[in-house]
Amino acid sequence: MATKKVSTPDSQPANSRITAITDLSRKEFITRAKKLSKQYRVTSDKKFKFKDFPTNVENDPRKEQKPFAQQALQLGVQALAEMQDKLYAQKQWSLLVIFQAMDAAGKDGAIKHVMSGINPQGCEVTSFKAPSAEELDHDFLWRCMKKIPERGRIGIFNRSYYEEVLVVRVHESLLQGEKIPEKLITESIWDDRLKDIQNFESYLNHNGIMIVKIFLNVSKKEQKRRLLERIDKPEKNWKFNAGDLEERRYWKQYMAAYEEMIKKTATDKSPWYVVPSDNKPFARIIIASAIISALDTMKLEYPQVGADQLAELHRLKEELLAEKG
Amino acid sequence: MATKKVSTPDSQPANSRITAITDLSRKEFITRAKKLSKQYRVTSDKKFKFKDFPTNVENDPRKEQKPFAQQALQLGVQALAEMQDKLYAQKQWSLLVIFQAMDAAGKDGAIKHVMSGINPQGCEVTSFKAPSAEELDHDFLWRCMKKIPERGRIGIFNRSYYEEVLVVRVHESLLQGEKIPEKLITESIWDDRLKDIQNFESYLNHNGIMIVKIFLNVSKKEQKRRLLERIDKPEKNWKFNAGDLEERRYWKQYMAAYEEMIKKTATDKSPWYVVPSDNKPFARIIIASAIISALDTMKLEYPQVGADQLAELHRLKEELLAEKG
Repeated sequence: MATKKVSTPDSQPANSRITAITDLSRKEFITRAKKLSKQYRVTSDKKFKFKDFPTNVENDPRKEQKPFAQQALQLGVQALAEMQDKLYAQKQWSLLVIFQAMDAAGKDGAIKHVMSGINPQGCEVTSFKAPSAEELDHDFLWRCMKKIPERGRIGIFNRSYYEEVLVVRVHESLLQGEKIPEKLITESIWDDRLKDIQNFESYLNHNGIMIVKIFLNVSKKEQKRRLLERIDKPEKNWKFNAGDLEERRYWKQYMAAYEEMIKKTATDKSPWYVVPSDNKPFARIIIASAIISALDTMKLEYPQVGADQLAELHRLKEELLAEKG
Repeated sequence: MATKKVSTPDSQPANSRITAITDLSRKEFITRAKKLSKQYRVTSDKKFKFKDFPTNVENDPRKEQKPFAQQALQLGVQALAEMQDKLYAQKQWSLLVIFQAMDAAGKDGAIKHVMSGINPQGCEVTSFKAPSAEELDHDFLWRCMKKIPERGRIGIFNRSYYEEVLVVRVHESLLQGEKIPEKLITESIWDDRLKDIQNFESYLNHNGIMIVKIFLNVSKKEQKRRLLERIDKPEKNWKFNAGDLEERRYWKQYMAAYEEMIKKTATDKSPWYVVPSDNKPFARIIIASAIISALDTMKLEYPQVGADQLAELHRLKEELLAEKG
């Protein structure tokens, strides 16, 4: 059985391991991906705590899936590409993938490696930076709403409207910059925002937009290692930003804000995935698996052509063949 | 007392009646406008029925306000213009005014006459027609969301996302054109949409966008008269649309959809105004009054300049005056 082969010990030659994985039928593969991602999924269970979700698979009770994970990225990317092709042809559903994380947790790398097989015509990545003056003059969903993927597409948000309950919550002075009338800045503002976001996502779900939310769960220790690497390695220098060190001082406040965010906005239809991210390759497999799981629920198929249309296609074929020259 | 003069009988010369109204202080005028519009306001009272809201002020128990109404439009437009100037200077709140009605109810005329005193730099009118192919490829709020007014502005929607629970509800076949995945088209779709719209407006309210929703309540008989006029008067021919007659056949279904819409989406913060519209001039006064009432709750003032800034202004003045030439 293919499933059995996947679990063979690491001592086995690499080639035969890859063969084992590629031997899996598409259906078996998707079943495995769903099983893997489910372990990191948070739905409307309101008991979410970070302490139940490790940052490193080495200490992770779920690591029995690791042999599968290590070999599966390429296959995952292929499966994703095939599913996207049907999504695009069918043009009914769309998928929004949201990435949130602390600095250096690996958002950019994950997007690059997981989505690299996708036809760019059906996919748009939007990175949300500090809002512009024009954006601050609007309600906070405005700039994101414009980028919600159209039918048949995958939209990827590298950061998102969730920053409104993260960085703005940790640095409350940012609220002033948003020019919200003072009397609306009340104690309930964060709860209101979390609820507004949940309502907004529920609206999107009603309209055929599925949402997968990825939190890259990295440890403070691993972040330190990666930031040092950005200073020490010349080819990584360009990624270093002094602001990242500033934000690192607010680690505890950020974790509290993330925990609250995940607890209050994870729903059955728009779940959060809390992905252990100290190990980048493993994190990427879980992300690919989460996206595959979401696409799988859409029951994607190429649109069927009816008997009439088929007859017309054949008539047109005859016409083409009958052309002189 | 100015208030008393307003109530003088119609037999009094027109001039003195107008003087009476213009004698009202701005504060008194706003008080009257608030009182007038309140009579047609529907908030979260879930008992709304059209039968309690006449289409014609002649049969309207609220008509005691008529002498005030007949004279007040010009003053209303002036008050609006002044309030908008402060709204724009303060740049915190914004106002969204939504117009919905059957054909020929007077939406365009109301927008023209009520908003004519407004500085167009602070105001944008968007007419939502049948959605384009690009718009249909997105969730239904997408095209409206982009036009939500920025801080300090007034946005006017001539029709809006409410069409999604009106024309689309009356002609359910339009849902097919929206390309929503079939499994999402369930019995609860209209309730879901109404709830999603209410949630969306609540989100806007949290972010400093006030919403005034105007339903121009015209009778079927008056619509007939106006449509005939569009056929009979050459200068009105261009307004006639054969489709309007088609829609008129669904009058009863539309009224049911409007009633449900008003009942389920009127809230204290985003009320509906059900404006008797068989008499156009009177309808326009109520609309101006409704908008004035909303702006009044914002407590608009020109931004105050602090002592430091004031000192700096004077220093710069000295600098300018000291310039040679």
